[in-house]
Amino acid sequence: MTTILMASHQDPVDLWRDALAMEMPELEFRAHPDGGNLAEIDYALVYWAPHGLIASLPNVKAVLSIAAGCDHILADPQLPPHLPIVRMVDDFLAAMMAEYAVYGVLHFHRDMHYYRREQLQSQWSRAWPLYTPDTSVGILGLGAIGGDCARKLGALGFQVHGWSRGPKSMEGVICHHGPDGLLEMARQCRYLVCVLPLTGETRGIINERLISAMPKGGFIINIARGGHQVDDDLLAGLDSGQLGGVFLDVFNQEPLPSEHPFWQHEKVWLTPHVAGELMPRSCAKSVAANIRRIEAGEPALDLFDKERGY
Amino acid sequence: MTTILMASHQDPVDLWRDALAMEMPELEFRAHPDGGNLAEIDYALVYWAPHGLIASLPNVKAVLSIAAGCDHILADPQLPPHLPIVRMVDDFLAAMMAEYAVYGVLHFHRDMHYYRREQLQSQWSRAWPLYTPDTSVGILGLGAIGGDCARKLGALGFQVHGWSRGPKSMEGVICHHGPDGLLEMARQCRYLVCVLPLTGETRGIINERLISAMPKGGFIINIARGGHQVDDDLLAGLDSGQLGGVFLDVFNQEPLPSEHPFWQHEKVWLTPHVAGELMPRSCAKSVAANIRRIEAGEPALDLFDKERGY
Repeated sequence: MTTILMASHQDPVDLWRDALAMEMPELEFRAHPDGGNLAEIDYALVYWAPHGLIASLPNVKAVLSIAAGCDHILADPQLPPHLPIVRMVDDFLAAMMAEYAVYGVLHFHRDMHYYRREQLQSQWSRAWPLYTPDTSVGILGLGAIGGDCARKLGALGFQVHGWSRGPKSMEGVICHHGPDGLLEMARQCRYLVCVLPLTGETRGIINERLISAMPKGGFIINIARGGHQVDDDLLAGLDSGQLGGVFLDVFNQEPLPSEHPFWQHEKVWLTPHVAGELMPRSCAKSVAANIRRIEAGEPALDLFDKERGY
Repeated sequence: MTTILMASHQDPVDLWRDALAMEMPELEFRAHPDGGNLAEIDYALVYWAPHGLIASLPNVKAVLSIAAGCDHILADPQLPPHLPIVRMVDDFLAAMMAEYAVYGVLHFHRDMHYYRREQLQSQWSRAWPLYTPDTSVGILGLGAIGGDCARKLGALGFQVHGWSRGPKSMEGVICHHGPDGLLEMARQCRYLVCVLPLTGETRGIINERLISAMPKGGFIINIARGGHQVDDDLLAGLDSGQLGGVFLDVFNQEPLPSEHPFWQHEKVWLTPHVAGELMPRSCAKSVAANIRRIEAGEPALDLFDKERGY
């Protein structure tokens, strides 16, 4: 009997149980804190599991992340060092992130931030829009998620730039890489969308240097991790007019503390970390595929790479 | 010398002059009220021109609309009855309308109406999103604009339905037609987007009958003409909960009167008729192409058809 233990304070346990039962009826599903005999657990399926939980599973073969990023697993100081960690790479997750990216870019591009303010004052006043084919969007991160964002923004007619750690090429995308490439891209883009993994290299990447490289009045959409942004630099950019607005789904502290200036800032639009929900029905397919590979003695797909940091 | 007279209270005359000079340097451009000798005018390029202006041009060969719809021309009681009227069919206009349609659908689909309210109260509270591939969007109107909306919503993963007056087929779109087809479509769609021309048949099409056919809590986006919607039926649907929200760009009276309940209704998001601005740079190409055809004795492309009403 292969057994999986799910531990997440926010994902829907019942939907996961049903979805995994559909994909892999032979898998026994348990949900923390009802793990039973922990020596029976083969796989841990987690999102911010309690620290020490994974270490308490003597026979666990791999940890599967219920998120694109694995920061929530690495944060556990008792994490056994050599345990394989599997990232969640899911088409639907990428599609959902791309929906948010498209929405966020169009929000500012079509002056919806302005029109909403006007509506609340019962004012009929038109802004003159920009010509989309002349407008550049830069995507920070060109993995599965960034690629889908690029494709969908490109289909809307935007000029799409993308940035990655090392050189990449992607059809229809003007590709940049490395620290200089980042600023070179920022200088050309009215909109920047961040979908990077959070690593030592990318922490704080949305900072004064990046913001000041952008054309005046640009916009940033961060749907990756709060750790990518330096809050004070965003606020300074917004207040000086260097930034026209930001759409943020992620924060350095979540839930965002109620006294944080982002909540009531007139140029900040925010959502509570919902850009990329994982749909159990879709994700269960890759969870099942990875478990089958590991059970067959093959390496999992989408293994977390400690060197790269994602 | 071929001469064109532009008459619009809102379009940017200088941009139109420059754009037409690029496409057709031999064309003389004049702007109302500086039309000079009106006997010299060959073409009228208009958006809500003063009534009687077109009739005062003795040698005008055609009226070119600075809008996808021609209602603003037909409203002139002194319009000479047999004058050819040319609709504005422009790829960029269609793309811009599709941007708005995508934005409007995602706005509700990703609960942005909800999250904005939560933000203003500094509340961190997540809604559970719907699975996009299970969600249907219905587009009223399957011309150049509706086709582009369908393609772009389909690329985001939605199930796309479309409705037209007569039977049509379009790849990736579940097509409906006629009065029964309209209700059949509405019954299956969480979101309806209206991009129809305004005709005797389509006036008031967004009414109690259509709204009550939709699944409870559905959403309507109207970016066509205000005359398509029955305001009281929209308000009744919003207040009963049959409608979850509406995104409106067009109104029965424009500018929308400041006392109209739409302005401050918590389920209404609105913009001041900006979904499809015409970019002179893009539109000047089709204006020039049509003038060249007429000058060569050929019929204009995109002629307004009085029988069909568009």
